[in-house]
This record gives sequence, C-alpha cells and structure tokens, in this order.
Amino acid sequence: MKKVIVQKFGGTSVADTEKIKNIAKVVIKEKENGNDVVVVVSAMGHTTDHLVKMAKELTPNPSGREMDMLLSTGECVSIALLTMAIQAQGYDAISFNAMQVGIMTENIHSKARIVNIRTEKLRKNLEEGKIIVVAGFQGVTEDGEITTLGRGGSDTSAVALAAALNAERCDIYTDVEGVYTTDPRVVPNASKLDEVSYEEMLELAHAGANVLHPRSVETAKQFAVPMRVRSSFKLEDMGTLIVGVEKMELYRPVAGVAADLSQARIVVCDVPDRPGVAADLFTALAGENISVDMIIQSYARKVSNTNDIAFTVDSNDLSKTMAVLDKLKNEIGASDVKVDDEIAKVSIVGAGMIDRPGIASTMFATLAKLGVNIKMISTSEIKISCLVDKSDAQKCVKALHTVFNLESDVIADVKGDLPDV
Amino acid sequence: MKKVIVQKFGGTSVADTEKIKNIAKVVIKEKENGNDVVVVVSAMGHTTDHLVKMAKELTPNPSGREMDMLLSTGECVSIALLTMAIQAQGYDAISFNAMQVGIMTENIHSKARIVNIRTEKLRKNLEEGKIIVVAGFQGVTEDGEITTLGRGGSDTSAVALAAALNAERCDIYTDVEGVYTTDPRVVPNASKLDEVSYEEMLELAHAGANVLHPRSVETAKQFAVPMRVRSSFKLEDMGTLIVGVEKMELYRPVAGVAADLSQARIVVCDVPDRPGVAADLFTALAGENISVDMIIQSYARKVSNTNDIAFTVDSNDLSKTMAVLDKLKNEIGASDVKVDDEIAKVSIVGAGMIDRPGIASTMFATLAKLGVNIKMISTSEIKISCLVDKSDAQKCVKALHTVFNLESDVIADVKGDLPDV
Repeated sequence: MKKVIVQKFGGTSVADTEKIKNIAKVVIKEKENGNDVVVVVSAMGHTTDHLVKMAKELTPNPSGREMDMLLSTGECVSIALLTMAIQAQGYDAISFNAMQVGIMTENIHSKARIVNIRTEKLRKNLEEGKIIVVAGFQGVTEDGEITTLGRGGSDTSAVALAAALNAERCDIYTDVEGVYTTDPRVVPNASKLDEVSYEEMLELAHAGANVLHPRSVETAKQFAVPMRVRSSFKLEDMGTLIVGVEKMELYRPVAGVAADLSQARIVVCDVPDRPGVAADLFTALAGENISVDMIIQSYARKVSNTNDIAFTVDSNDLSKTMAVLDKLKNEIGASDVKVDDEIAKVSIVGAGMIDRPGIASTMFATLAKLGVNIKMISTSEIKISCLVDKSDAQKCVKALHTVFNLESDVIADVKGDLPDV
Repeated sequence: MKKVIVQKFGGTSVADTEKIKNIAKVVIKEKENGNDVVVVVSAMGHTTDHLVKMAKELTPNPSGREMDMLLSTGECVSIALLTMAIQAQGYDAISFNAMQVGIMTENIHSKARIVNIRTEKLRKNLEEGKIIVVAGFQGVTEDGEITTLGRGGSDTSAVALAAALNAERCDIYTDVEGVYTTDPRVVPNASKLDEVSYEEMLELAHAGANVLHPRSVETAKQFAVPMRVRSSFKLEDMGTLIVGVEKMELYRPVAGVAADLSQARIVVCDVPDRPGVAADLFTALAGENISVDMIIQSYARKVSNTNDIAFTVDSNDLSKTMAVLDKLKNEIGASDVKVDDEIAKVSIVGAGMIDRPGIASTMFATLAKLGVNIKMISTSEIKISCLVDKSDAQKCVKALHTVFNLESDVIADVKGDLPDV
C-alpha cells in the first residue's frame, strides 16, 4: 500500500487562480513521489472577511448556525477550483466537502471539535488513484448540521485526516519557512528550528507563536502524526518537523521565545477563602465558553481570611468575562474586580528545561536586569511564562533570545554569568 | 394546518445586503398573513459569473462535478444571509442546502432533474413555526454527490418544493410585474396578463419569453401547483397567476406573442428516403445532449428518392451539432449540411386557438403583408411558430401583437379583414 501524505494549504496560498495553479504543482509533485495525496484547503484569501462583513451588515449578532452555513462555502469554492487545476494538469482528482467525507463533529457551532472521520470514501478514491481535495475548517453533525471548527480549523482538519488515514506525514504549507526560535519581525536573527517536539510547539503556539494553532498540534500529538511546517514557495526546504519528543535526538534547553499580546489580566479581589469559590468562578466562565489561561490564587490572608484570584483571558473575551463577573461578584463576595489589558505574556519553551533547574532563574534575572516588573508567573514542565507590561514585551523577547543563545545553532549553555542585555 | 406558500427570489433580488433586507420583509409579510413560508433563493447577483470566470482561468473544460461543487456554494451564501436578515427582524428562520433537505436528483452534473424531495425535515421545522430558506438550483444524488439543475433551476426547485409540500401557491418574484403579451421592450403597449394557463406559459417560455424557464412550468403543470409571477417591489400587484386551463374562465384566442432569437437552423440535404435515417440523426444529437426544437422533413422527392431534414437548435449547441453532423453526414448519405443562424422564431400562443381555425391563416397573412419570408412553420395545439430572418423579428412581433389585439383587455376577434400593419 502506498504511503498517504496529507497536505494543507491556507487562505493566502489559494488567494487567486494563479496561486491555485502553483499549489496544484506542489500537490502533483507529492503524487509523483509515489504517494497517495489528500489535500486540505482553506477559503481563498479574503473570502471569509467578505462573508463576515455581509453578515454584519445584516445583523450585529448573526446566529452561529447560519454563520457556519455561510462560512463553510468558502472552502467549497477552494476545493472545486484546486481540483480543476489539478485535473487541468492531467491528473485524476476529486473534491469533497466535510459532509461528503463524513468529518463528524460535536453539535456546536463556530468552534466544533472533530469526533470522528469516516474513511471509506477517502480510501476508495485513493485506491482509484485519485488525488483527494477536502474542505478544511468544516464538519457535520450526526443530524446533518454544518459546523465550523473555529480558529486553526483547517490545520486541525488536516491533522485529523492524517490520523484517520494513518498518514505518513501531515505537511502544513504556510508563507513562512518553518518554526522559528521567536518572531523574526522582532528578532531579525531568529533561527529556524529543524525539529521541535509537539510539547514545545504546543507551548509556543499557546504562547503566541502563530504558525500553528495549538488544536492541530494537540491532535497531532494525540495520534502521533508527524507534522511538517514548510513553505510552498521553497519546496527544497523541508521546513520544521514536529514530532514526539522521544523521536528527537538532541534539543536545546530552550527551543524558542514567544510573546502573546492578546491577553487581559483580571484580578478578583478579596474573595472569601472557602471551598468552591474558584470552582464557581471558573465554571461560570466555562459556561460562557471563555478560555482562561494563567490562573494565580494568592495564599489566604490570615486576618481577613480572603484571597485574590488573578487570571488572564483573551482580550476578545474580556467584555463577556466582565459580564459574568458583574453577576457573580456579590454572590462570591469579592470586594472588587480589576482589569489590565496592557499586558503581554512572554514565554520561554523547551523540552530541554525539564532537567535543568537554572532556566527559570536565568529568565527572571534577565528580566530583572532590564528593569522589567513581572506581574504574574506560571510554569509548566517545558514552559515558563511571565506577565509583563505590553510596552516591555519586545525588549524581553530580544534579551531572552540572546541569553538562551537562540540565534546560533549551538546548544545554549546557560550556566554561569548572564550576558549583558 | 396552515397553508404553505413557497416563495422564490432570483439573483438580482438578493444582489446585496440591502436587497436581502428588503426580501426579508416580503417573506415576513407572507408569514404574517398566517401562512407557513418556504423561501427558495438563487446565488447573489454576479456570484455565479465570478465563479465561472475563476474556473475558466484554470481550465477551458472544468469537470461538471467540480463546477457543481463550485456553483452550489453561491446559493448557500444567499440562504445563510437571508436567514440572518429574517432572524434580525425577530422571526424564527432556518436555512437548508439541498443535501440537508434531501432534494434528490439524477446523477447528472450541471443539468440534473429532481426525482424526489424529502419533506420530513421541512415539515418538522414548519411545525416549529420556522420560516425555511432553501438553496435553489442544487440537488444531491443518492451517493451524496452535489448536482445543479441547470437553467431555470431555482424556479424548478421552488415548484418542486411546492409540489412536495402540497403548497397553496408558488410565488416567483422577479424584476418584472408578471407575464406580458409580448416583450414590453419591443412593444411598449404590451399588456400584463392576469392569468395564463400552464400550456400557454410553457409555449411562451419555449418561444423565448424569458420570464420563467419551461422546466419550472412543466413541473408546476405536472403537479398542478398554482404559480404566480410577481414583483418584489410591488407587493400590492398580484402579478400573473399560472394555473391549469380548466381553472381559467375566459381567455383570448392568442395570449401572447414571443420571439426567440437564440436558435440556428440546420438543413441536412438530400437524405435518402429510407426508414431510420431521422432516428439515426436525432439519436446522435440526443446522445450529445443537444435539444432540437423545430423539425421539418420534406416530402420525399420522387426522382431522387431523397428528402431534406431541417431543424433548429440553440445557437450555443451549434458547434457541437456540427461536430455530430460531420461524423454522420456520409453515414446517412446526405449531400450537404447548411447552417443559418441569422434567424428568429416568432410564435403566437393561446389556449383559445384550439377551436378557432382562422388564427394560423391570420398569422401567415400578417407576415405576408409585411413582406416577410417564412422559412419554416411548426404548430402545436396552442402555438404557431414561424421561422423568419432575424432582422424581421421585431416588426413581426409588433404586427402580430396588434392584429391579435393584445394591447387592450378586449378579447380579440380575428374574423374579418386584417388591420393594416
């Protein structure tokens, strides 16, 4: 049996018919390599923006169901056009929307999760030698309702298809050449990583490195699908391979530095220290589909027997969050709710930090040398994040990139004195 | 149980969001009349042209399957937007594409015929009080392939839905106020018909009066669905009702005059007079999906024992037709094939001509008085068509409109002398 390669092309890659012709060549090249090819595409360039604009002209609050009906058309245009472009080169190809494949999702509009992918139709058409072009970003419920997957949806479609088809690899084609140690617009000598682990990529994604949406990486990790981030304009460059950490030979203590400027911090003050308060608060937020990122609960103050709960949410969810807190504030007995949206979360990520206790202190010392005040800290096994003033974010990223020696290919050794920043 | 009204709005009616808001009001008005409402919409304005243009940029011969995938997106955009506009007015509404409803068609791309419509989902949602907005022009096969219905597709979708739901009426909203006795651009005092029979409408449609595609009228006739052609900008005007001839009280001998300038005439010369020649010829044309309109076979010449077969096809099918004839010419033994595409078919239509033998002679005499040469004649029970030079078409229509007294509401009496033309 042939190996299956899943390829995904985003909206900029299919923005016009000339670009679609170019993509067709990339697809055919993979087919010519002797592989079975399944291609996942997004909507063309600004299609989605245009559709959203029309919806907003009609109503400020379009229903999620109708938005999904509307937006899912964008990918169907792309798959038909790309299929025609492949056929025009003399190759057999066929397009499928999510309903036709059977990309089954939960019954939630605008951010559904894939629960299952039917593979019979795909297998049958691959066996017939066809290149299959599938609409990304969309799914269908058991009741035949059209859903969309939300942000990072097409990447997730591609990875889920790769998992369902037991694919050799899922190639995510983008307009960048791979995953970098940090944003090259901030640090010009940021270097491209040849390999990164799912875990690191996940933390980098969550921390604001926008190459891949964490959902797709999570799915890839769950099903051990090797992913490659690469450029459709530089096929000779294999980009960055994202695999399980166990498959990597050697890695830096810190793989990358990321900054996330899209968060807001909320502090709920003087909450009585009794069981269930945090649960009430975060259950209410979850009920409104608000994702909370960093959470810090201070030690209870001995005298007042209260504590503060601080957390961060996406700035887009801020007004929804405040609406929840307005209702809940008295109920849970908080004295005040403070908001700060002039913040940035700066993170260092690396599977290599697991056994190296000096990494965190190096990060804190670096920021201290810059005179940057750290407002919140959170850590995971492979990530350390510091909340700082938004205006400090750039200099923090630059300094951390230097101190962890990410511009070179030399594995950084962070013992000893810090370089000046 | 409430009465069901099916409404259909074409591409110009939903060309932008302002127009969609206007349509939403028309829909709601019908709902407020106490009816269950099912709305069928086409793609927005120039959407289809834009999609076709992109396809042609990729390949001169896009596959029918992929064209259907591509074009079917247009209606899905319209249904989502119209549903949002209705919801914004505080009414419960839901959109369905053809796959969701189950508008089942044959497995033929770009001109599929509807074979069945599943009504469970529609009935359930109507019972819940919802206004249902359905994508016109598209269908789905038993295998889940997306099809489109071809020309007149959305009108046909609407009538088929009306039949399946046993609707009270199918209202086709257009940018004209109804069906006219002839094209008002040619004859300014053409008058609007309050009623016309399916049969007359069918002949008028076939004869080039482009208000309704004949397929929709055929379907309406077959299932006795009353149709109304009306303007969405003049709701007080009930337009033209199209019903079975048995439901009409009184009708003119001639209901209308039509001209069709889109045909080409082909004469296959000196075909041997033996059985099966015509069958071979028209079977070959049918095999290429070429529709033939008028067919005249001359009497066999006694000496040569040959005859001529003349017929007309749509000009768009001319090159396909010539390709068929090139292959067939020697096989059937024809001496020559002549083509004339500078022709027009001028027709008079009226259920009232059935028992009035003077109508045909009046038509021929009128054209003779104009000095117009009649190249072919064909008749049905309620239509007489004459093929004339394209340059004569306009004066023929004007003269026939006058001679059959169609500018007034008086039933024409065509006995006695003809008026000068």
